[in-house]
Amino acid sequence: MAQNGSGDRVVDNGFESLDQDEHDDRLSQKGSTKQKEEEVSVERVFQHLLVPSWRNQLTGRAFVVSFVLSILFCFIVMKLNLTTGIIPSLNVSAGLLGFFFVKTWTKFLEKSGLLRQPFTRQENTVIQTCVVASSGIAFSGGFGSYLFGMSEEIANQSTDTSDFKNPSLGWIIAFLFVVSFLGLFSVVPLRKIMVVDFKLTYPSGTATAHLINSFHTPQGAKLAKKQVKMLGKFFSMSFLWGFFQWFYTATDQCGFQAFPSLGLKAYDNRFYFDFSAIYVGVGMICPYIINISVLLGGILSWGIMWPLIKTKEGHWYGKGLGEGNLHGIQGYRVFIAIALILGDGLYNFIKVITHTLWGLYHQIREKQRENVLPVADQDSPSNPQLSYDDQRRIQLFLKDQIPTWVAVAGYVAIAAISTATLPHIFPQLKWYYIIVIYLVAPTLAFCNAYGCGLTDWSLASTYGKLAIFTIGAWAGASQGGVLAGLAACGVMMNIVSTASDLMQDFKTGYLTLASPRSMFVSQIIGTTMGCIISPSVFWIFYKAFPDLGKSSSEYPAPYAIIYRNMAILGVQGFGSLPKNCLLLCYIFFAAAVVINLFKDFLGKKGKFVPLPMAMAIPFYIGPYFAIDMCVGSLILYVWERINKAKADAFAPAVASGLICGDGIWTLPASILALVGVKPPICMKFLSRAANVKVDNFLGN
Amino acid sequence: MAQNGSGDRVVDNGFESLDQDEHDDRLSQKGSTKQKEEEVSVERVFQHLLVPSWRNQLTGRAFVVSFVLSILFCFIVMKLNLTTGIIPSLNVSAGLLGFFFVKTWTKFLEKSGLLRQPFTRQENTVIQTCVVASSGIAFSGGFGSYLFGMSEEIANQSTDTSDFKNPSLGWIIAFLFVVSFLGLFSVVPLRKIMVVDFKLTYPSGTATAHLINSFHTPQGAKLAKKQVKMLGKFFSMSFLWGFFQWFYTATDQCGFQAFPSLGLKAYDNRFYFDFSAIYVGVGMICPYIINISVLLGGILSWGIMWPLIKTKEGHWYGKGLGEGNLHGIQGYRVFIAIALILGDGLYNFIKVITHTLWGLYHQIREKQRENVLPVADQDSPSNPQLSYDDQRRIQLFLKDQIPTWVAVAGYVAIAAISTATLPHIFPQLKWYYIIVIYLVAPTLAFCNAYGCGLTDWSLASTYGKLAIFTIGAWAGASQGGVLAGLAACGVMMNIVSTASDLMQDFKTGYLTLASPRSMFVSQIIGTTMGCIISPSVFWIFYKAFPDLGKSSSEYPAPYAIIYRNMAILGVQGFGSLPKNCLLLCYIFFAAAVVINLFKDFLGKKGKFVPLPMAMAIPFYIGPYFAIDMCVGSLILYVWERINKAKADAFAPAVASGLICGDGIWTLPASILALVGVKPPICMKFLSRAANVKVDNFLGN
Repeated sequence: MAQNGSGDRVVDNGFESLDQDEHDDRLSQKGSTKQKEEEVSVERVFQHLLVPSWRNQLTGRAFVVSFVLSILFCFIVMKLNLTTGIIPSLNVSAGLLGFFFVKTWTKFLEKSGLLRQPFTRQENTVIQTCVVASSGIAFSGGFGSYLFGMSEEIANQSTDTSDFKNPSLGWIIAFLFVVSFLGLFSVVPLRKIMVVDFKLTYPSGTATAHLINSFHTPQGAKLAKKQVKMLGKFFSMSFLWGFFQWFYTATDQCGFQAFPSLGLKAYDNRFYFDFSAIYVGVGMICPYIINISVLLGGILSWGIMWPLIKTKEGHWYGKGLGEGNLHGIQGYRVFIAIALILGDGLYNFIKVITHTLWGLYHQIREKQRENVLPVADQDSPSNPQLSYDDQRRIQLFLKDQIPTWVAVAGYVAIAAISTATLPHIFPQLKWYYIIVIYLVAPTLAFCNAYGCGLTDWSLASTYGKLAIFTIGAWAGASQGGVLAGLAACGVMMNIVSTASDLMQDFKTGYLTLASPRSMFVSQIIGTTMGCIISPSVFWIFYKAFPDLGKSSSEYPAPYAIIYRNMAILGVQGFGSLPKNCLLLCYIFFAAAVVINLFKDFLGKKGKFVPLPMAMAIPFYIGPYFAIDMCVGSLILYVWERINKAKADAFAPAVASGLICGDGIWTLPASILALVGVKPPICMKFLSRAANVKVDNFLGN
Repeated sequence: MAQNGSGDRVVDNGFESLDQDEHDDRLSQKGSTKQKEEEVSVERVFQHLLVPSWRNQLTGRAFVVSFVLSILFCFIVMKLNLTTGIIPSLNVSAGLLGFFFVKTWTKFLEKSGLLRQPFTRQENTVIQTCVVASSGIAFSGGFGSYLFGMSEEIANQSTDTSDFKNPSLGWIIAFLFVVSFLGLFSVVPLRKIMVVDFKLTYPSGTATAHLINSFHTPQGAKLAKKQVKMLGKFFSMSFLWGFFQWFYTATDQCGFQAFPSLGLKAYDNRFYFDFSAIYVGVGMICPYIINISVLLGGILSWGIMWPLIKTKEGHWYGKGLGEGNLHGIQGYRVFIAIALILGDGLYNFIKVITHTLWGLYHQIREKQRENVLPVADQDSPSNPQLSYDDQRRIQLFLKDQIPTWVAVAGYVAIAAISTATLPHIFPQLKWYYIIVIYLVAPTLAFCNAYGCGLTDWSLASTYGKLAIFTIGAWAGASQGGVLAGLAACGVMMNIVSTASDLMQDFKTGYLTLASPRSMFVSQIIGTTMGCIISPSVFWIFYKAFPDLGKSSSEYPAPYAIIYRNMAILGVQGFGSLPKNCLLLCYIFFAAAVVINLFKDFLGKKGKFVPLPMAMAIPFYIGPYFAIDMCVGSLILYVWERINKAKADAFAPAVASGLICGDGIWTLPASILALVGVKPPICMKFLSRAANVKVDNFLGN
């Protein structure tokens, strides 16, 4: 029943889970070879090492490092959120950097003779868990999607400008605090069932555990040291490159980000390489098919469809509406993208739910048989005697319990607070909507955590879209259905996304002998950090870059307008779409389903079929980042050709370095913007004719 | 009496010989280690190989390859001539590329079974000789110095605009034909004395011979293959980079060549990295001290002096004269550069002449002693029994003779034709000036060839400057002394430069067992090629880039204005210089002498003292290329730190690749310019304030 790695990769969550997915596929392949080598036993390698008590796994230094890394990753995720919404898995980076920080720290203490506690893999898992919990909120907080979709800026670009709620640090933090912990409490009681009884694979969690385990073996530590060095090198290069670029970016239309590297004509259709290290890195981490899909989507839309539709200006839609008007060309861009995303989402929702139910059915039937034949069971091949590893892991996983009443009480208490608070934040979101969500949520959280365990694929944003349409329609247009829908999406997404993320962590903890109790504490601390760090980081971006959300700006936040328009569609129907747009939407919706069917039908060969979800983003913001990502792919491809072993060992480190360096450069960049320091130079690109004019103008 | 490699490196010839020098220093160091390993005998390694007859050394394929390489190197040398006048030694590139072409060709024939004659090192030497002879004319033809200094363009920038002669294909080719062969005939009879009797070292020629010999041993061929691959890789990258840059260079003030990489303020003072692969490559080939000197010169002049002098505008020189006026700031730039060049040139002229005379005196005394003690001589340590290598080399070197009467008759005939022709080309150059030059020239040619054999340093351009001043002063201002001086410089330079170049070749031939007769023929063919190819290539540049010679353009040809102003100084004296300029000139002239004295006085440590000649060029054109060159140095330095062996083996190949790729890109670039295809885009750099204005202007 191992669904993971079956080639049935599906995109969701604004790519998050997909990328995590496919990336971890690679990792788990490596992991599985390792597994074979170590088939004898992983835990025997660590046998002589004491596992610290759960309290000792929670060290101060672990949370200091987690805090630093949380800020780092929050900046990176926020930048990705607000530029394209494509977020690759940062697990390897987090693992490497966490290892690096603590190792440096302990080495320093060791030399000064002050080291009281060595760095264990349990502590490493605690850091990993805390960082995942914290930076997960940067994604599920919806700063690039539903939450920012409520703002006036996005409302003005949409077809319904009546209702908006501008971001403000206070209500965002309050909102996150009342919704983010629910997912945690809803799955904690189920951890034994999922991890020990059902033996779900959780490929990402397993891969992370393998990584952490490998760090703590002598050879692994040596390789990790080299990888960290590589990461550091590319981190610095990428950071300095960002810094250098900054000087030439007096406005959005200046600098390397506006470099018409494929010519001015191509630039007008947003085909250019924008020299962004972060997306080259993302391209190196994402599997080839995603990068190809994104590029294909870009060619199909900006290369073929939009130029063709533009020739219909005046017929299909009004003349002179400009680039940004949803009644004009922008309408086709946004709604066709939505159609693709929904088609893909629906297909995969049905697929995963089917898998989930089918898997559950088998699990339960097996349990029943076990109960019927409790003795013969021991010898049956379906349940062989537990290996040494499993015995030891289960023993430690079950040692520190978290009482179920704590989880239930926690859930009910937070749900009550939440129900009382949320209508104050969003008057459109009535208390009875919230109660309904909280009644349904644990079931959906379980489904998502279970499905994720099988397929490594979190459906969080699909559940979020479900909430948009149901609650939006329930509230209706007159009752502020758009905002109600978006808010409901936030509540739902936070619960189901946290649920699957944290169950992955429990799997990691299980495989690294970390105590569930220390994991739980780490998750609570991480979530708390995330609830404060993420809004603060978003706030910096929001204040530093005033044109956040404009489609032509450096930070178009593409999902914000897409989510808002989905909510509008849910509330108002298709009335406001330009001519033939609805027809095209139907075609692309159907195409998304057909392509997915075709992909699954082909089986192994299906991996060459592009992913509709990946094709959708360039429809709206243009294919420039696709070119960056394909450059990343190309580098990886050439590297693999030249030296496969080296590429496998170091490409993730190089990619992480590129992503982290450029991502963290946004911190000083936004500080500079906040204090009003503007770049001094504009690197401008003019056609020869325009240049002559400008030269004459400047000459006078 | 081995003066070479003593650290007494001197700059001359617009750097040509200097770079060749220091570069070959490195080569000869390598050579000398090799020599020790092979001390037993180089020739024994090649013992089993037949040396082809002199006619068989002259193959058709050798001249086809030479022709192709001549065009290639002519473009490169011309580009360097016209941009900064700094020309590194291209011997290694020529060697590698020649080897590559013929080897590919013979391999192809071998496979098809058509190979009649294997590729021998003698043939390789013939190619090398032909290419050196041919591309030497691109330098000694004065396209970046005296010849272009005669043009109207340069005359208009100088203080004497009365007399000019614009370039034209016809007279340039005629001029080169009547002057270029004289050097050849004047040294041919002396080759036995220089190479066999005096045993002069000719470091460049020796290094080239070592290179060629090493190519033809099995390990050498393997390394050469790798080097060629590296060269090819960087050749392509450099070429493509040039191509890419082209698109953004709608005017001279656009594109990467105008990239204010250190900020706008620094750019205004010509401090910027201009992304030119050719000068990064040149920087990798030139020794560190040259690059540092150039940078120091740039900082001293554009960083300190010119900004200070500019504050005196209105006091020291008239207000509003602009950047290009010799009575203004440009006067300081040009004349202080001239002062440095002349000071350095004079010091080194005296030094080398002293060395030459001293060396000659010792040689002759020794010969006399040999004649007195012919028998005891055999056993004296100063003349040990000849080694196997020497025996074999001398045997082959003396086998094929070139009768002295051929050389003398050739010289007289060409001198006669030349005396009759030149006054028709330059009416200012009277026939009696020419006869005087031709009477003195063989002596000077001998001196230069001899000095070059001792110190590896050609004084050609110093002899040229001597001619400028003497003939210019003799003719006088009223008789067109400026043009007479420049033309005389050309006649003189061609003779003495060819003489030393070709003697280097004979040394190479001696060490690779190539026949002097085949060398002589190859030199004649190479010179003929050069007389046609060089003017043609210059003509392409001249027609393709109409702002050739303007100080702010891509091709400022800095030596053209410097040579012309030297001629004007020689004829008219110092009358037209702006205030305090003459004083500064005296100071810098004296400083050049003192620095050189100091350098020689310090001995070994003198290598850390900068070279005044190298400091002069940025005085005029600005330090931007110095930054390129220092980037090259930095790359080499880091590479040597990381992997010394690899850097030593491949850095010359990488540098050659960068130089050749960018250099040859000027061929398509100038063809595009000739057929009127202009780059479509201007990459412009504006200050933020200017950008706002331009955006408003373009918005309207």
